[in-house]
Amino acid sequence: MSQPPRDALYFPPHQSQPIDPYLPSHATPSSKPHVTLTFATSLDSSLSLSPGTQTALSGPSSKAMTHYLRSRHDAILIGVGTAIADDPSLNCRIEGAGGYGGEGLFGQPRPIVVDPRGRWDVSGESKVVKLAEEGRGRGVWILVRKGMVDGGKRDVLERVGGRVLEVGEEGNEGRVSWEKILGVLGKEGIRSIMIEGGGAVINELLSPKSMDLVDSVIVTIAPVWLGTGGVQVCPDARVDDGRRVPVSKLKDVQWIPLGEDVVLCGRPSSAQASSSKSTVTK
Amino acid sequence: MSQPPRDALYFPPHQSQPIDPYLPSHATPSSKPHVTLTFATSLDSSLSLSPGTQTALSGPSSKAMTHYLRSRHDAILIGVGTAIADDPSLNCRIEGAGGYGGEGLFGQPRPIVVDPRGRWDVSGESKVVKLAEEGRGRGVWILVRKGMVDGGKRDVLERVGGRVLEVGEEGNEGRVSWEKILGVLGKEGIRSIMIEGGGAVINELLSPKSMDLVDSVIVTIAPVWLGTGGVQVCPDARVDDGRRVPVSKLKDVQWIPLGEDVVLCGRPSSAQASSSKSTVTK
Repeated sequence: MSQPPRDALYFPPHQSQPIDPYLPSHATPSSKPHVTLTFATSLDSSLSLSPGTQTALSGPSSKAMTHYLRSRHDAILIGVGTAIADDPSLNCRIEGAGGYGGEGLFGQPRPIVVDPRGRWDVSGESKVVKLAEEGRGRGVWILVRKGMVDGGKRDVLERVGGRVLEVGEEGNEGRVSWEKILGVLGKEGIRSIMIEGGGAVINELLSPKSMDLVDSVIVTIAPVWLGTGGVQVCPDARVDDGRRVPVSKLKDVQWIPLGEDVVLCGRPSSAQASSSKSTVTK
Repeated sequence: MSQPPRDALYFPPHQSQPIDPYLPSHATPSSKPHVTLTFATSLDSSLSLSPGTQTALSGPSSKAMTHYLRSRHDAILIGVGTAIADDPSLNCRIEGAGGYGGEGLFGQPRPIVVDPRGRWDVSGESKVVKLAEEGRGRGVWILVRKGMVDGGKRDVLERVGGRVLEVGEEGNEGRVSWEKILGVLGKEGIRSIMIEGGGAVINELLSPKSMDLVDSVIVTIAPVWLGTGGVQVCPDARVDDGRRVPVSKLKDVQWIPLGEDVVLCGRPSSAQASSSKSTVTK
């Protein structure tokens, strides 16, 4: 193992140990990949101050944790809005990962961008492409509807080991279901996916229908209020028997203080319908 | 000390000990009362599923904590919206408080409702009035603009040891400032106030101007998403030098897991302007 570069991150075992039970073990073969939904919000549940901007919410320990989590998944996935807004690196910079002191691409997850309509203008200048070129990350996969990516983009991706994966019918109307996306990725050999954002993706997955596909949720909360107008994690309201009920709950909950932030680990509560019935006024 | 009634709550010392540093000591005389801002939200920062309803968010330990906090303050204060929506008890049911095993009104905070326009229809049927009648809470004070409360309501309050306190000019336009409210209460001998809600009151106090008046913030977060349409804690956006910056931050932060919930204790960060400058994209 070569010397890790100066930008390598370290997440100590005493901090990772309480989080590990929520991570994929890959011990049990499964047709559906293990899905970990993870993101960082302010106290008022915002991911960033306004759409299209990035806001540094969490502290250095939380950043190291994110990269540790990436090292433990086969793939990391974001929506196209985040890819366009952030030009993200989507690699794993934890000490010992490939390109960060480790051999080859060891510990590097596959970056995946869900982009049904082919909106992302990925090029040789995109961070994720450059990192793959430098051997510090895998080539990005993009998930598009049939016929929505031109040959130029395909060449850019394939030159660095990336791919275009077609999912769903031709045309640019409507969303592609998460069942379909996870089905395609499972067939490609992806056993575990960390879904990182952005707001639209997270809110979709927190809805009762999609939440069944999620195995673990890891949320970092920073002690700050961003105020109105931010990109909020707040799923669509849920109505049951004509009245409002909570949208989603977590079970097997652990709250882990990490620097100034807290990390919440949990699993979707499968007893949605019955547990929401117990919501009473006090 | 008589036997505490069956509805008395107990909050054990090992749980209260990490919270105690954030509570008023009353050791240093001050013209301004110590203000503790406290509330419970969902992960998507909602106090309740919809306006005018109550949602049981936090678990039994968090409830016991709330009543412990009440026992440690001279007064508890809510806005009129919450008084109307909840018909709240606003007393302290911790074991050993007056009416709950303790003598007289020991440990019972003064309930205060901020109701500038005299909208609250308080009567002998209101829970807070009944509890005062039974010796299980103090008489409620209401803070109104001059001339906004009729004699009937005044009689109801005064019969159980409550009062009408006039604050601000005559008329029903505009808000009464928090400086003025705290000034009036300080003159009445209130040394510490726990402000519990609702949404409008909390969002006002989290704004940079009012946050200077707050000494401690104690927020309980439950591992549930309520969804869109809830009553959200989300203060007005803040713009500094033409760009969005975080509205408020906390310092001296402690995260204390409590059952399934977490309790965040902190103090407003006085370095608002300078710390917000450091918000950069990563």
